[in-house]
Amino acid sequence: MSAPARLVPRSRAGISERLALSAATAEGVHIATSDVPGWLDLHRQSCGTAIRRIPFAELDHWSFAPETGDLRHRSGRFFTIEGLHVVRPEAEWQQPIIVQPEIGILGILAKEFDGVLHFLMQAKMEPGNPNLVQLSPTVQATRSNYTKAHGGAEVKYLEHFLAPDRDRVLTDVLQSEHGAWFYRKRNRNMIVEVDGDIPLDDAFRWLTLGQLVALLRLDNVVNMDARTVLASAPTAPPEPGALSSDADLLAWFTGERARHDIRTRRMPLREIAGWQRDEHSVRRVDDRFFQVVAVSVEGAGREVAGWTQPIIEPVGPGIVGFAYRVFDGVPHVLVHARVEGGFLDTAELAPTVQYVPANYVHLAAEHRPPFLDLMLNASPDRVRYSAIHSEEGGRFLNAESRYLIVETDEAATPAEAPPGFHWVTPGQLNWLAGHSRYVNVQARSLLAVLNTSAAGRTHLPR
Amino acid sequence: MSAPARLVPRSRAGISERLALSAATAEGVHIATSDVPGWLDLHRQSCGTAIRRIPFAELDHWSFAPETGDLRHRSGRFFTIEGLHVVRPEAEWQQPIIVQPEIGILGILAKEFDGVLHFLMQAKMEPGNPNLVQLSPTVQATRSNYTKAHGGAEVKYLEHFLAPDRDRVLTDVLQSEHGAWFYRKRNRNMIVEVDGDIPLDDAFRWLTLGQLVALLRLDNVVNMDARTVLASAPTAPPEPGALSSDADLLAWFTGERARHDIRTRRMPLREIAGWQRDEHSVRRVDDRFFQVVAVSVEGAGREVAGWTQPIIEPVGPGIVGFAYRVFDGVPHVLVHARVEGGFLDTAELAPTVQYVPANYVHLAAEHRPPFLDLMLNASPDRVRYSAIHSEEGGRFLNAESRYLIVETDEAATPAEAPPGFHWVTPGQLNWLAGHSRYVNVQARSLLAVLNTSAAGRTHLPR
Repeated sequence: MSAPARLVPRSRAGISERLALSAATAEGVHIATSDVPGWLDLHRQSCGTAIRRIPFAELDHWSFAPETGDLRHRSGRFFTIEGLHVVRPEAEWQQPIIVQPEIGILGILAKEFDGVLHFLMQAKMEPGNPNLVQLSPTVQATRSNYTKAHGGAEVKYLEHFLAPDRDRVLTDVLQSEHGAWFYRKRNRNMIVEVDGDIPLDDAFRWLTLGQLVALLRLDNVVNMDARTVLASAPTAPPEPGALSSDADLLAWFTGERARHDIRTRRMPLREIAGWQRDEHSVRRVDDRFFQVVAVSVEGAGREVAGWTQPIIEPVGPGIVGFAYRVFDGVPHVLVHARVEGGFLDTAELAPTVQYVPANYVHLAAEHRPPFLDLMLNASPDRVRYSAIHSEEGGRFLNAESRYLIVETDEAATPAEAPPGFHWVTPGQLNWLAGHSRYVNVQARSLLAVLNTSAAGRTHLPR
Repeated sequence: MSAPARLVPRSRAGISERLALSAATAEGVHIATSDVPGWLDLHRQSCGTAIRRIPFAELDHWSFAPETGDLRHRSGRFFTIEGLHVVRPEAEWQQPIIVQPEIGILGILAKEFDGVLHFLMQAKMEPGNPNLVQLSPTVQATRSNYTKAHGGAEVKYLEHFLAPDRDRVLTDVLQSEHGAWFYRKRNRNMIVEVDGDIPLDDAFRWLTLGQLVALLRLDNVVNMDARTVLASAPTAPPEPGALSSDADLLAWFTGERARHDIRTRRMPLREIAGWQRDEHSVRRVDDRFFQVVAVSVEGAGREVAGWTQPIIEPVGPGIVGFAYRVFDGVPHVLVHARVEGGFLDTAELAPTVQYVPANYVHLAAEHRPPFLDLMLNASPDRVRYSAIHSEEGGRFLNAESRYLIVETDEAATPAEAPPGFHWVTPGQLNWLAGHSRYVNVQARSLLAVLNTSAAGRTHLPR
């Protein structure tokens, strides 16, 4: 017995075309692209925030638990910093790790103006940002935020993301974050389209994807949360083919997940070996990788007037880069199936290179990570994209990396990718970013660039 | 600079059509469908195996660890039975759980005969199967199996799955298994096509999908491992539309994963509350759910001559069923976003109903799981599919369930699905089964039926 019903096509038509039109629209209706940095400057000045390093003893409501040494908030909310024991076939180590099981919302509102999709971006202060204020999603809220665990103000525009009409959801996917620093963290990456009047706060501006493409070329303007949401947009660029089919790509990745062996176990922070705690930091005895420190955020115009918090600070700037080649007219990037201790499931697809060089400079060239020198020594005419971006400023202090897309050749990066690596098209990476835990957060930052370039039907400029 | 290369289409053409042809082919070239049960009987008799319940003290090389009470093999391999503490907003409990971190291979070889794909199925004895011998995949191997942890024979045909030519891989996906009994277990589900001569052992037969459709209608013939691999085959039936688009479906599921809260922690088996251990079993004080027991497998013709092992035995038969409706000519089933303690990530898509009724009969009707009575009381003219299947016979003893697909109506199961439920087409479920951790193992058993019926372009018979 067949019941009458309104069926819809399984693939929603037109979304990728509308995103492409937005990406091809260099200026929007609300603010000129060239005025965005100045507008961010204004907010930087008006927020009047100062970040001061403090000893752990000056943290309000945060303390090391007596039994475990874990660093936690008195309320039991926000996040904790605990220990993690990681065992791999070739290595075994212990480290601090941020544990934040609750799922936050990173949400961007989209709306058509003059027939072109615009995205509502916020000038947002985060204490770890090197320049404090960057462009963030419309909403960037942990569950503690929106259930008011810190007694702050309403999260603006949140209501559009809590029970959206599913017809207007352009994307909604749980994405992982930094597996080296977070234990199994994931956030909802959402883009929700709205009609009608949206009352506009001064800290918000509507921008086209074309404007965001341009802003992604500037240093420290588009924050990590915005980059990962943009990467999750279903731009689905049309591509005549790829070096391997989607099915081949999945089979390769299944093999990578199956062959890697990693066991992790959470442990008390006070017991981790190879790290030491003093008044100001928890850091490696050899000063590699990162340290846990504390900051005071003073005079902030954020949800609450000021606060203190622990924060993770890497020991130096990172290099994150994709090797990029065009095969038979179709762009490809070389992804790496990378194992990180905090991933929920073994490995995710990472950029070709993702390292903090300071951790490896003491090693002889032949022991350095593969392709690292290729990125460090890229000649300018091969660099298709280069900008400095920082990671989530709510958890990471001055965690800057140079993000690169570097055109390479058969000698450096053969079409037959080495074990653990695979050539994929921007369309394939975008397709996988529509599901959880395929594409890591660093690769998604670069995918935001590839997405918007590909959606605008412009190749990366030479 | 564009390098010349052989690009391929992202979607491999023709696979779903070839699977459809196989599903429409009622008889194959190797053995008549009607002869398969007799052939399984022969193997049942010739293997001469007897299963005997034994006290834990008679287990060889298996024992309860002194410190933790965990049940484990002397070698540290195979699997362990440990404790799990599960916290949900509405309930909190402790239970035994099987921990088996290594990833096994469930692989089926495919080959064309007379232009039609056939699948190489094995007559395999598993101690927990109620009738011992069932049709299994070509290869069903844990890593312990194929690295010879129990010093047994070679796993036949394994070489085809260890480093397959990716062009010939029809599917290769990590799938979860029972989240109520396994801690984050996953296996590789593979179908690999071969050419040329395959030497044939007497325990193996080539069958078309059409033959497997027919055999799936018999009780306890096609084992769980075969069902989950068949569910993973990319049959991709053409469908003119669905009640909701693929993007809507993903957005709904992201919301379900985000709204459910579950925290789990492994703990020593000896410390779990509400369970007791005697000479023969570890079971709940109230005898609900399942017990851990031990068996001796005697006179087996398997990889080793005989062995003993612990095994999980549910307290009674289960009911696993999909509510099924045809909307505007397109079949749909009602999936449930089900939270299980052993899932890696919160929830997976499960059948409408998945329960052991014995655990709930003491409850008043209004407190029983939703739709359970709809399945238990379905009138015969509404039952589109009904067969008894058992779960993995290597880990579960007599774990039988009645698997049902029951046509329902607007009154019982409205087109507007209740919270936690969603109408999906067989094509949508098959699409999601191409990725990890969307479709749980019980839903995949029913999907194997839906897949093969839909691929054969036959609706489920009335």
